[in-house]
Amino acid sequence: MVGIGLIGYGYWGPNLLRNFIETPSAKVIAVCDLNQDSLNVVQARYPSIKTTKNTQELFDDPAIDAVIIATPVSTHFKLAMQALEAGKHVFVEKPLTTTSAEGEELVDKAKQQGRTLMVDHTFLYTGAVQKIKEQIDSDKMGDIYYYDSVRVNLGLFQHDVNVIWDLAVHDLAIMDHLLPSHPLSVSATGMSHVAGQPENIAYLTLFFEKSLMAHIHVNWLAPVKIRRTLISGSRKMIVYDDLEPSEKVKIYDKGIELTDSKESIYKMLIGYRTGDLWVPQLDLTEALKTEARHFVECVEQSKTPISNGESGLRVVRILEAATQSMVEKGQPIEL
Amino acid sequence: MVGIGLIGYGYWGPNLLRNFIETPSAKVIAVCDLNQDSLNVVQARYPSIKTTKNTQELFDDPAIDAVIIATPVSTHFKLAMQALEAGKHVFVEKPLTTTSAEGEELVDKAKQQGRTLMVDHTFLYTGAVQKIKEQIDSDKMGDIYYYDSVRVNLGLFQHDVNVIWDLAVHDLAIMDHLLPSHPLSVSATGMSHVAGQPENIAYLTLFFEKSLMAHIHVNWLAPVKIRRTLISGSRKMIVYDDLEPSEKVKIYDKGIELTDSKESIYKMLIGYRTGDLWVPQLDLTEALKTEARHFVECVEQSKTPISNGESGLRVVRILEAATQSMVEKGQPIEL
Amino acid sequence: MVGIGLIGYGYWGPNLLRNFIETPSAKVIAVCDLNQDSLNVVQARYPSIKTTKNTQELFDDPAIDAVIIATPVSTHFKLAMQALEAGKHVFVEKPLTTTSAEGEELVDKAKQQGRTLMVDHTFLYTGAVQKIKEQIDSDKMGDIYYYDSVRVNLGLFQHDVNVIWDLAVHDLAIMDHLLPSHPLSVSATGMSHVAGQPENIAYLTLFFEKSLMAHIHVNWLAPVKIRRTLISGSRKMIVYDDLEPSEKVKIYDKGIELTDSKESIYKMLIGYRTGDLWVPQLDLTEALKTEARHFVECVEQSKTPISNGESGLRVVRILEAATQSMVEKGQPIEL
Amino acid sequence: MVGIGLIGYGYWGPNLLRNFIETPSAKVIAVCDLNQDSLNVVQARYPSIKTTKNTQELFDDPAIDAVIIATPVSTHFKLAMQALEAGKHVFVEKPLTTTSAEGEELVDKAKQQGRTLMVDHTFLYTGAVQKIKEQIDSDKMGDIYYYDSVRVNLGLFQHDVNVIWDLAVHDLAIMDHLLPSHPLSVSATGMSHVAGQPENIAYLTLFFEKSLMAHIHVNWLAPVKIRRTLISGSRKMIVYDDLEPSEKVKIYDKGIELTDSKESIYKMLIGYRTGDLWVPQLDLTEALKTEARHFVECVEQSKTPISNGESGLRVVRILEAATQSMVEKGQPIEL
Repeated sequence: MVGIGLIGYGYWGPNLLRNFIETPSAKVIAVCDLNQDSLNVVQARYPSIKTTKNTQELFDDPAIDAVIIATPVSTHFKLAMQALEAGKHVFVEKPLTTTSAEGEELVDKAKQQGRTLMVDHTFLYTGAVQKIKEQIDSDKMGDIYYYDSVRVNLGLFQHDVNVIWDLAVHDLAIMDHLLPSHPLSVSATGMSHVAGQPENIAYLTLFFEKSLMAHIHVNWLAPVKIRRTLISGSRKMIVYDDLEPSEKVKIYDKGIELTDSKESIYKMLIGYRTGDLWVPQLDLTEALKTEARHFVECVEQSKTPISNGESGLRVVRILEAATQSMVEKGQPIEL
Repeated sequence: MVGIGLIGYGYWGPNLLRNFIETPSAKVIAVCDLNQDSLNVVQARYPSIKTTKNTQELFDDPAIDAVIIATPVSTHFKLAMQALEAGKHVFVEKPLTTTSAEGEELVDKAKQQGRTLMVDHTFLYTGAVQKIKEQIDSDKMGDIYYYDSVRVNLGLFQHDVNVIWDLAVHDLAIMDHLLPSHPLSVSATGMSHVAGQPENIAYLTLFFEKSLMAHIHVNWLAPVKIRRTLISGSRKMIVYDDLEPSEKVKIYDKGIELTDSKESIYKMLIGYRTGDLWVPQLDLTEALKTEARHFVECVEQSKTPISNGESGLRVVRILEAATQSMVEKGQPIEL
Repeated sequence: MVGIGLIGYGYWGPNLLRNFIETPSAKVIAVCDLNQDSLNVVQARYPSIKTTKNTQELFDDPAIDAVIIATPVSTHFKLAMQALEAGKHVFVEKPLTTTSAEGEELVDKAKQQGRTLMVDHTFLYTGAVQKIKEQIDSDKMGDIYYYDSVRVNLGLFQHDVNVIWDLAVHDLAIMDHLLPSHPLSVSATGMSHVAGQPENIAYLTLFFEKSLMAHIHVNWLAPVKIRRTLISGSRKMIVYDDLEPSEKVKIYDKGIELTDSKESIYKMLIGYRTGDLWVPQLDLTEALKTEARHFVECVEQSKTPISNGESGLRVVRILEAATQSMVEKGQPIEL
Repeated sequence: MVGIGLIGYGYWGPNLLRNFIETPSAKVIAVCDLNQDSLNVVQARYPSIKTTKNTQELFDDPAIDAVIIATPVSTHFKLAMQALEAGKHVFVEKPLTTTSAEGEELVDKAKQQGRTLMVDHTFLYTGAVQKIKEQIDSDKMGDIYYYDSVRVNLGLFQHDVNVIWDLAVHDLAIMDHLLPSHPLSVSATGMSHVAGQPENIAYLTLFFEKSLMAHIHVNWLAPVKIRRTLISGSRKMIVYDDLEPSEKVKIYDKGIELTDSKESIYKMLIGYRTGDLWVPQLDLTEALKTEARHFVECVEQSKTPISNGESGLRVVRILEAATQSMVEKGQPIEL
């Protein structure tokens, strides 16, 4: 049984709490938040869970083996470091830290302490991403040519970080998980449309070995919500639309076609697709449920999490470089 | 009555021919193509139209006032120059030329000769783009923040130019027509996935004065065909989906929202849009029909075409710069 | 403050409980269910609420003013009658009863006792149906010509009633609320595809005064879930798609067109719609929240609920007649 | 080589002419129409084809082996009969005739004369219907449970027949081709919303042996165009959406599920589909091209057409019975 303490009961905290409560080998001991109203909600719903405004109580509590950190990103480093130093395992919201230097320290500290450090890259635990990984790993898709993602939101500004740190982090985590290699350089462009606010629209191109490339469009100021990823291989191509209720992952049979035939060209020009299309049934388990169980299992069995500290650190390095490239209007930055 | 000669009866030529035949003040005199089979088709369908393999016959024919050039892009400059020198008006397929130097020569020559030079930027003549222009020009949208276009095709390779020259040309022409200013610099990235072939995927970011920016994703190697443009203003936003049969242009009422309200944030996070949505009825006239009439009217009344040589030249300049930036992995290029 | 007792904590009960707990003028006193596991869940989540397996405890409890009945339909009559006789107000799941005779008794009893009797026709309280009602009542749509609904589900059999009683009940309640008159007769057809099971597919046509008609397709055995209603008026038409996340209600400008013009006919044949389309922003409040507040307000202020016993009874009468017509293969039944 | 004469050059005639001209073993000899303008168009486009206003010229012309009849339905019987009596093969627009008595006479006459009688049920020759037939005939779908079609159009009134004869004829022809047996009875309802015009909305239920049933909704007065058919079998289900550009035929893996499991029920209630989905690539050949070749082949080789006179007659019998049932508000009529 893994004793759990949760820090932060804001937007995402309630989802984390609910899922860790329902994780068989976990027992949630305490919740910490600076807001008394939030703590009152916890007490009303779950009378047996302790509440506190003081994080130190969690670090000092021997019944707590692991700390879940769901606070603003600027506090991740300090809280995670304290938790690791207190000998706790750590599960931290994305992104891991605000700088790669901090991320490296956390990864090192976790190693020293022999504790699990895991980042909440929730998408990796969805049935959709699992199905795509299965396709790529089994080599059914052939060589991967590109990963292209559009992740845009309605016109909402609420953030202390720019849109890259808020939204592109998801795609970078998914790419880190799915793609056969890590990016070598990044070129990013973006803009702020509200005075005094961070960039609300950004475009990232990532270069890899060989002819693999990736591109991410993130945007807080769109008329419609879009979550669509195209992944193209030499033999198959995938469209992953996370907003599609019943057909999230579509797998297209045919890849590239080199032709000089006029009739083929005409058919391609008027056609809307080529080859058969397969839409697999996905595992509909809530991703956070799968992820909470995975974290507890890693803690109990000293296994390395899928979204471990190193992967979180790789993601932060790209976020840093992309932000720098964006300031320089697309100037490519080596990774 | 404007006498017309058409050079090139390949993929697009038949559409041009049909539309110029049906243009009231135009009379198609002759069609020229190097392929005898194509000429035979013309003769069978339209026995009264002369056919020839020799372009010079068209330039020499006094009954021909205007020449339509629908040949591969590498031949545009030479043919258009000959036509202008022969005193003909010229309607040329997009892109105008393969270099901006050539484009400048053509524009100058047309001016010297007092002849109309028009580029076939067909999209400008669609009901969809006309409706969007009406919205922007009437200032209903407020300040324009960005233009974001995805124009991707099935996996077909047939081209002697890269994907930017083949597909981005459409968006650059539309932007030249719609946006309040011209771009100042461009950063582009792209890649070829087939040895010996030009780039089949590319991403362009364009920077303008103030906080306007534009981005274009063009791709020959996608699993699905997409033609979707987002245009965001401070008061309204537009989604233009050219493949949507009945709802091509959607106009969203609300723009940006700055809020700290938790409830608002939550609604935005779970919502799919904000504000009312209006989907105007569009003029469904075939764009090429409108465009053919416009050309003939410009010739007859010595008016400046909407898609005149200068606009075609501005587009070619951006295509050149984008191609250079792409080679340099996103290095921004001044325009 | 209205004291609430809930009977039935199965599929829908938890939603009712949560919403009545959050209703300002209501206080949930007790929950009754035959299943101890369900009661344990209630106790864990809401320690202050009493739990019991004995409905009589609720009827006898003077702190309870109103009883919510969320049990199988066959038990509605007996439980609602007991509650009314005990002087309680009653909120009962749809359909009101299994026969119109029972429904009449309940309506009479509520009148005698001076108590509120309300049926849970949840859809009436959605932003979508409210917006449609606004359109119809303001006479913007002109004369209503037809109401056509498709409500089909995935292949699931779990029911003790046939598909009409399970699904058509929603449309009948919506029609009762929206349409200017009540149906005069019904013709229904349907079939069972599993031996020993009730009909899983059914079609109902309802005839009204003048030229208004309605049709409902309900189906438990469909490959896809569909919830689409077409409502046609002489001036405007509505498409209401309840599964559409952001465009549930679409209002089309143009109605019928009488023409002999060949060009008009051709345009209609190739077109996908006529006139402008307006997609209003809807109130996104959870319908059950609105409905719970409405019930409590009706109890406190002795107002007649929108979905009162009479409307529930009218719906049951049509369900009865439709079932009879279905047995007779479409034979029309007067209402 | 089969000599062809075409009667009727209105809406559909030009498509027929173009396709028969391009049919290798056919030679179009003459076109007949009462409208001189239409004949002028034919002469301009195809100078080698004779034109006439006199049908008798076609019947008397020994170079004409087969007559294509694309005139209003009320003239089909007389013209087809004359053609058969003159020893011509006949290809006639749908529906075959206005009464089943006339249809029987034509079928008999064709048999006596040893001539081919084929009805233009175009949908049977589409890649979509061919793919569905392949699925049903190979028994992959299991027992067929129902065929449900919605075929609704924009608000256009132009017809001398009611909406059943105009639109349901397509579905009846498709069902005649696809389903394992013929219907035993029909119940139909419908209404006219414009004084003096035929019914513009109608619903047909068809009963077959065992538990197979079919339903058709046809409508000239809808806000949106819909062409969607659900076909359900015990093992697979199909959604056929004829307006879908790239995914016309979707084949769903799983059929019915009988369960008492609460979790299964919940998943079904929240889910949007079950099982894998396969979207086959379809043959995109123009249906009329395939059909024209089939007719010529049947004439040349004395084969029985897929859409022969008997199938056309079966369709007319159902149209007649449905119209009668509609007048009687759904009263079922034996077939």
